Amino acid sequence: MSYCFSKIMDTDFDKSIEIVTEELKKEGFGVLTEIDVQATLKKKLDVDFRKYKILGACNPHFAHQALLAEDKIGSMLPCNVIIQELENNKIEVSAIDPVASMMAVKNEKLGDIANQVREKLKRVIQNI
Amino acid sequence: MSYCFSKIMDTDFDKSIEIVTEELKKEGFGVLTEIDVQATLKKKLDVDFRKYKILGACNPHFAHQALLAEDKIGSMLPCNVIIQELENNKIEVSAIDPVASMMAVKNEKLGDIANQVREKLKRVIQNI
Repeated sequence: MSYCFSKIMDTDFDKSIEIVTEELKKEGFGVLTEIDVQATLKKKLDVDFRKYKILGACNPHFAHQALLAEDKIGSMLPCNVIIQELENNKIEVSAIDPVASMMAVKNEKLGDIANQVREKLKRVIQNI
Repeated sequence: MSYCFSKIMDTDFDKSIEIVTEELKKEGFGVLTEIDVQATLKKKLDVDFRKYKILGACNPHFAHQALLAEDKIGSMLPCNVIIQELENNKIEVSAIDPVASMMAVKNEKLGDIANQVREKLKRVIQNI
């Protein structure tokens, strides 16, 4: 089972983040957190790493429903979308498949919600 | 399979966050992100929700190793620790079990790393 939906984009890194953020918005997701992995690893470990960002995307309606169905599901929220620069300078964007990341959680109601969010994130990747 | 390690704390909400942050630090985790779920749901949906925060905890050494082993694992990082206020005013703290959240990822090297991080997060919960 794959745990992400991915696409290669032929654009630059910053532009790809703009496009992803815009497509997330169309599906009702705001970006609540942003981690610059490259900068963090440089600062904390002094290692060089490729451009890599983690966007924490949250659709408030579905997050609320998920929290009502499963009180500790915040431990798996928000849904991450990662953007990384490949060696050929192309950009790879990957969105988590919440059905995969939540597979250890046995809760049918949550499963229905995860399935709906999965379809939304799949569309985001299709549309970028 | 449970997907979290949890403990009930008999303290107030803000103090519990201080204690958790301190124990995370002892195991090499910094808190990279913090989501105030209560405030976010109020702002976005105008719904009332209990006090609930999501701390994104990252141990840079292990995050780096995980990223070298599995290039898209950023979609499951950082490791979340959630803090919520229960109806009896007690505080419940839960740390994700990365072995559970990463169970859809078939990668032995990553599995070893997830196991080590799991032990660290388990200790954080034991020690708060």
